[in-house]
Amino acid sequence: MIKDFRIHPVAVADPPLRSSYGRHAPYALRTVIRLDTTDGISGAAEAHGGEGSLAAFHALREHVLGMDPFALHRLWMRWGAGESAGDRSQTWLVPGENPNDARRRAFAAVEAACLDIIGKAVGRPVCDLLGGRARDAAPFSAYLFYKHGGGGGEGADAREDEYGECLTPEAIVRQCRQMIARYGFREIKLKGGVLEPELEIETIRLLRAEFGPGFPLRIDPNCAWSVETSVRVGLALREELSGGGYLEDPTAGLDGMAEVRRRLLAAGAGIPLASNVAVTGFEDVVPAWRDSAVQIVLSDPHYWGGIRAVQRLGDLCQALGLGLSMHSNNHLGLSLLIMAHSCCATPAMEFACDTHYPWQHEEDEILVGGRLRFENGAVRIPDRPGLGAEVDWDQVARLEEKYWKLPYRRRDDAEEMRKHVDPAWKRILPRW
Amino acid sequence: MIKDFRIHPVAVADPPLRSSYGRHAPYALRTVIRLDTTDGISGAAEAHGGEGSLAAFHALREHVLGMDPFALHRLWMRWGAGESAGDRSQTWLVPGENPNDARRRAFAAVEAACLDIIGKAVGRPVCDLLGGRARDAAPFSAYLFYKHGGGGGEGADAREDEYGECLTPEAIVRQCRQMIARYGFREIKLKGGVLEPELEIETIRLLRAEFGPGFPLRIDPNCAWSVETSVRVGLALREELSGGGYLEDPTAGLDGMAEVRRRLLAAGAGIPLASNVAVTGFEDVVPAWRDSAVQIVLSDPHYWGGIRAVQRLGDLCQALGLGLSMHSNNHLGLSLLIMAHSCCATPAMEFACDTHYPWQHEEDEILVGGRLRFENGAVRIPDRPGLGAEVDWDQVARLEEKYWKLPYRRRDDAEEMRKHVDPAWKRILPRW
Repeated sequence: MIKDFRIHPVAVADPPLRSSYGRHAPYALRTVIRLDTTDGISGAAEAHGGEGSLAAFHALREHVLGMDPFALHRLWMRWGAGESAGDRSQTWLVPGENPNDARRRAFAAVEAACLDIIGKAVGRPVCDLLGGRARDAAPFSAYLFYKHGGGGGEGADAREDEYGECLTPEAIVRQCRQMIARYGFREIKLKGGVLEPELEIETIRLLRAEFGPGFPLRIDPNCAWSVETSVRVGLALREELSGGGYLEDPTAGLDGMAEVRRRLLAAGAGIPLASNVAVTGFEDVVPAWRDSAVQIVLSDPHYWGGIRAVQRLGDLCQALGLGLSMHSNNHLGLSLLIMAHSCCATPAMEFACDTHYPWQHEEDEILVGGRLRFENGAVRIPDRPGLGAEVDWDQVARLEEKYWKLPYRRRDDAEEMRKHVDPAWKRILPRW
Repeated sequence: MIKDFRIHPVAVADPPLRSSYGRHAPYALRTVIRLDTTDGISGAAEAHGGEGSLAAFHALREHVLGMDPFALHRLWMRWGAGESAGDRSQTWLVPGENPNDARRRAFAAVEAACLDIIGKAVGRPVCDLLGGRARDAAPFSAYLFYKHGGGGGEGADAREDEYGECLTPEAIVRQCRQMIARYGFREIKLKGGVLEPELEIETIRLLRAEFGPGFPLRIDPNCAWSVETSVRVGLALREELSGGGYLEDPTAGLDGMAEVRRRLLAAGAGIPLASNVAVTGFEDVVPAWRDSAVQIVLSDPHYWGGIRAVQRLGDLCQALGLGLSMHSNNHLGLSLLIMAHSCCATPAMEFACDTHYPWQHEEDEILVGGRLRFENGAVRIPDRPGLGAEVDWDQVARLEEKYWKLPYRRRDDAEEMRKHVDPAWKRILPRW
């Protein structure tokens, strides 16, 4: 029985990465939760941060105290049933900031912490509790960002800038070289929607020239493009985005995506479209499939509602003939483990998962033993029960202290653009 | 690690029940399997019987010996990948006799036995390992059959005939009264396709008159009717099959079902169509949904590939807006537990499940303590780890001895019709 539920908002240094939403603030916000059972077992999980998430966790708390950690369906039926039916798309709000999926996000973290507890009680890794491993290690992709100079954090708390400023195609190739040398990734994702489309096309071409077709490429402009521009970029990159790559959320809305797909197919370009913006919940999958708007769905064990939700999404995608990949937000090692278990317990996960992990720093890791290691771009399931790591709760306390001292309470990339780049900046869709 | 895999074909006395497939033989065939681990834990499961199932289990054996009981995804990937892609429909072959689903049926039993082992190792009921209970007890329906006199078994091994001959509408009402008095069922299913459609319509009407609208009604003629007849019966019973009831497999094939649905809707009759004949695997669900051929899918933890497969099917049905119910074959208490855990672990299971359990006898039960009890038509998840019952292996040995002495090696209801009812009997579709 769960007797204690602790909720720790934390702030984590984050470099000034760019996307169509704007620019990352010097700190990314996360929430670390801890459940303790009457048997003396504790489980932990990491989730989106800021005051929206915090409020959801505090509302969920009374349902979790006293519960049996195995009784997850019941918790969902009691708690998730109240989920708002409003727009959960990530067209305007970044993942983790939409109140319409706040309940399933909070549930997801509790599920992960309960599975951590169950795994420790049983002496088995979490993915083994969920049907066992389809694979022993979760492959991730090199997640490249156009960025300003700076490694994240502020003042005395500023971090080293490992990758420097990267605002040109050549700088991105350098960034990718560094990242692959360090982590061994075998697939590459470029966050687009930042520079003129011609420059992003050039970036992808330079990456292909540098790394060759053995490294599948994906680009994700987060809806920055019109249908016309999406088709133009797609046709320009028809070779580069084939063979295991994809074009992710080029334009806003399922209708726009479907139109892009129709026009690309009419021009003989079969590159698949992926989405985590227009498709964020189970309700969206069938319409997206029916309209051929999306061929690859990006799962996420955080905002889809948990590790089992990723498995369920995999089954649904398999039944519909859709591909499955995984989305990422800025995160620490605990989320990386949740993502790795989700991937390994989901046979349908055929694409390398996204991860922001290279953008965070050793100084901010909350796991005992420091940052997790990648082998050939993959995270191996630890040979330990539960999620497979011990949380350094003193470190969590330090990061929470920082959270309460800092002014950041929600992710607002547009505000950062106005502060640092252009006082008049607004998110305009389509921008090109 | 699994060190032993025992496979026991058994024969179980079965009354001469009728369906459009013909007449049940005096014995139903089942297989009971037992897995033993190096830790000294044993798990058991019950599956379809006869030589086809037996061959599949013997072929699977080498993959199971030495495996970790948690490693179920891997076993499926290794073993299920070789599944034949041929027709798995149950239009001509009864469930359990189609070689095209033999692999997933064998896998299902191994999964159930592994979950039984894991549950015992962890000290928790199986459904708790699968996300926890959506409900504490699995509701079942009163499964009524037109039948000849006789309780099943042969010669000195003949069983008492609790329900007597039931070949008229009135006799079925009496059968239902007896069954509900004994088990407390709250939903009613009539196996049709046996008498003239007018008599089956009359049977349903008499049942409604006797039990009222508080007892939803379903009728399942197993494809015995033409599209015309299906529509005629559907319109005649539009009231009786509404409000939680359904019309199950009135006619053969998805095209026929879709046509029945179209015509019923055109006549303003929205009674849902259910299927376990045309829809037997995940590959069938999306086409059935797309053509509006089926509104309710009948799961089965045996031939759909396990308890997790029922959960996955529930998720798929939920995503598509389809209803979920559960199919049954003749079975003993161990299968009843597998079905109850499947139901309780699947939030989407909104209809009472089918069960043949009332047709079997105390003398044939293989559980220590005898037959399982129903409360208000439902089977409560036992407060014991694993599937929740101990198998009486001496009794299994006795039933296996009987299997080897008897001539029955596969279910052949048509042959029984020729033996006992009409030497020229053949399965004709549509019959009416």
